[in-house]
Amino acid sequence: MSELSFKDKVVIVTGAGGGIGREYALAFAKRGAKVVVNDLGGSHTGEGKSSKAADKVVDEIKAAGGIAAANYDSVEFGDKIVETALNNFGRIDIVINNAGILRDVSFAKMTDKDWDLVYTVHCKGAYKLTRAAWNHMRDNKFGRIIMTSSAAGLYGNFGQANYGSMKMALVGLSNTLAQEGKGRNIHCNTISPIAASRLTESVMPPEILDQLKPEYIVPLVLYLCHEDTTETGSVFEVGAGWVSKVRLQRSAGAYMKDITAEKVKENWPTIENFEVNPAYPTSAADSVSGIINAANSGKSSGPVLHRKPSTTAAAPAAPAAPAASVAVDGYKSSAIFQDIQKQTQNNGAELVKKINGIYQIDVTNAGKTQSWIIDLKNGSGSVSTGANGKPNVTITVSDEDFVQIMSGKLNPQTAFMKGKLKIKGNMGLATKLGGIMPKSKI
Amino acid sequence: MSELSFKDKVVIVTGAGGGIGREYALAFAKRGAKVVVNDLGGSHTGEGKSSKAADKVVDEIKAAGGIAAANYDSVEFGDKIVETALNNFGRIDIVINNAGILRDVSFAKMTDKDWDLVYTVHCKGAYKLTRAAWNHMRDNKFGRIIMTSSAAGLYGNFGQANYGSMKMALVGLSNTLAQEGKGRNIHCNTISPIAASRLTESVMPPEILDQLKPEYIVPLVLYLCHEDTTETGSVFEVGAGWVSKVRLQRSAGAYMKDITAEKVKENWPTIENFEVNPAYPTSAADSVSGIINAANSGKSSGPVLHRKPSTTAAAPAAPAAPAASVAVDGYKSSAIFQDIQKQTQNNGAELVKKINGIYQIDVTNAGKTQSWIIDLKNGSGSVSTGANGKPNVTITVSDEDFVQIMSGKLNPQTAFMKGKLKIKGNMGLATKLGGIMPKSKI
Repeated sequence: MSELSFKDKVVIVTGAGGGIGREYALAFAKRGAKVVVNDLGGSHTGEGKSSKAADKVVDEIKAAGGIAAANYDSVEFGDKIVETALNNFGRIDIVINNAGILRDVSFAKMTDKDWDLVYTVHCKGAYKLTRAAWNHMRDNKFGRIIMTSSAAGLYGNFGQANYGSMKMALVGLSNTLAQEGKGRNIHCNTISPIAASRLTESVMPPEILDQLKPEYIVPLVLYLCHEDTTETGSVFEVGAGWVSKVRLQRSAGAYMKDITAEKVKENWPTIENFEVNPAYPTSAADSVSGIINAANSGKSSGPVLHRKPSTTAAAPAAPAAPAASVAVDGYKSSAIFQDIQKQTQNNGAELVKKINGIYQIDVTNAGKTQSWIIDLKNGSGSVSTGANGKPNVTITVSDEDFVQIMSGKLNPQTAFMKGKLKIKGNMGLATKLGGIMPKSKI
Repeated sequence: MSELSFKDKVVIVTGAGGGIGREYALAFAKRGAKVVVNDLGGSHTGEGKSSKAADKVVDEIKAAGGIAAANYDSVEFGDKIVETALNNFGRIDIVINNAGILRDVSFAKMTDKDWDLVYTVHCKGAYKLTRAAWNHMRDNKFGRIIMTSSAAGLYGNFGQANYGSMKMALVGLSNTLAQEGKGRNIHCNTISPIAASRLTESVMPPEILDQLKPEYIVPLVLYLCHEDTTETGSVFEVGAGWVSKVRLQRSAGAYMKDITAEKVKENWPTIENFEVNPAYPTSAADSVSGIINAANSGKSSGPVLHRKPSTTAAAPAAPAAPAASVAVDGYKSSAIFQDIQKQTQNNGAELVKKINGIYQIDVTNAGKTQSWIIDLKNGSGSVSTGANGKPNVTITVSDEDFVQIMSGKLNPQTAFMKGKLKIKGNMGLATKLGGIMPKSKI
């Protein structure tokens, strides 16, 4: 495999005067990047200031033939760090939010200063720097951002209510930035590193620290920041040569008609049962549509919900080829899909540009389900039968209701509310479907 | 099922002048609680102030025969809200962090004011109020805290980088508070509600809002705050009569010897594979021990790690009864467990008080595994063979190594580092085991 290059990319690394930050700076520089080495030169509890730490790393990079510039501002003044990048290198491509301090103390003894300092450096600082870089990245249609979280945030840790809270705030920030950045090739990911550093040396025995070399964190960050990498909005745990991904898992849950506290108590085993049909929402809209679907299904069918959309084909599925017939015997909806197919043949490229998504429509009829795929993401679009590929949204509807909706006799929103129209996945995309429907009714 | 009562409990509800907050206040009061109705009376974008909203809800509660007092402070001054509780009702049992504002804007246009206001109300406010209540709860050895998160935090949402970040910060805060509160019967849980409110009415169609009644959120919160409920440190999505639980799922990941960015790229399918042996860490220590275990196993056995501890019994397991023999033929470790059993018979109650946890020790020998359970959580403690119950920590070690460790010939930390001693679960509890071991060596 050829080496992942960062030639001429401009990278800001905060807290790069030592530890993991220094390793990032050295590694990016070695692979051709121009690096802004930011370090306030303060203590690990957020006190003091000195330019030495950053200067030393810049010298180290230069001595090895690399390109770097130092910056000594607190991340709280992230705009100044971006200025250093622009003044020295004319652009900004990659931001590694790494700077941090610790003010560990039990919550019972925590002072506002303990809280405020940790907030300012970890959370406000990451916001300020990323915000200052963001619009430049948008203009360049390229950006890679790393947030640094911690197991203390993801899972909690005694004595770190301030730190854990702010480390989780960065996951939240990354979640939304990933969504906002998608259209502009700006990716944001979060890592939860475990490594020997100023921040961990006080809490771990030396034998374990030996195994947790800071340089073991770097390869994941290099990979995530490379221009060819498409990963975004994800969280990773990394350390000791090991990398894993973390995501939220949601139980299928329970729907309770006329819900009361007593019913919640009664249904608790179902609520916390992760074995049956857990979901993995990827956006707020996805989460909300799941809740509404679940509640609607629950009303008609009982407490345990959130079934996967059926993909059983009622009739043999035709292979997905641009001009293959999408008619299926016994389905009135066939005519609608044939109409949509014609539209894609006429102005598919334009629709792909406008929609940029893949729909799967599961049409039910007499206890069977027939799937159609409307691909308005690839090439100049296509319609096919079957359930191939990875749809961005899956819509389940009966043959009769679909025709009713398309002929304007059934309001799609009403159908959705009554559970006649089920949507799983990107809900925003579902509402866009109206624009391509022959009668613009969905 | 008898009604869950809150008789004489003192409850603070922030943002209780309307929407979900008002529903909480009314519901707690109806079930016997004394309620502090906090509302600044500002707009939903954080401007203005008026005492009317809180007063109206207090009047409503009193008219129905309930007990309530109004407070008009911003949650930023959480200590003053606690003062209102203490001055009026002499104690504080339950805190519902519900107040919120929205300053939705794309990240490209976000101002520091948009960021700061949302931070101050959602995050700093929840910290301030909870911190002010915390030591009273500790003194009373009782407390129930609810944090209000959002799908925008858990999964991200366009235009809500500020709000999503702070909503996730509250999950992080709850994670740690749950751990710090355990010994004092203080529980903290987070809800992610979806309901029609001032905050959602602008973004959802009326038909969906009808289904998302604010009062549908209340029953879960009542259940979580009841004195008999033991749930803590969890996150729930709730709305429209539906309740589900959310947790982090971690892929088994990949261990890469001499890790590089190129190896990370190569191993990506393994890193993001959630199908094989995912883990569900419940604390930072749990997460870290998992990483170290995985890296250690990986060194000897290949890239995909994180196996579940084997629970296959080599010999028929004796039923778990206080005085049943825990000797198993062919295991030298038997003698150690017999010693520990004697200790539990002599001063088990004291050990239970001190340790409060269940150990499972999986001892391997000639390719087989024999499990022992040391229960120092229930009754006056017990030791038994087999793998029954839910251990808080599982330790896997070979028969030979276990004897070496117990006789002081093998340092347990070295054994752990070399992968000879594997720990899954509560690592802190594992280190406590030394205190009950006959030779205090583990």
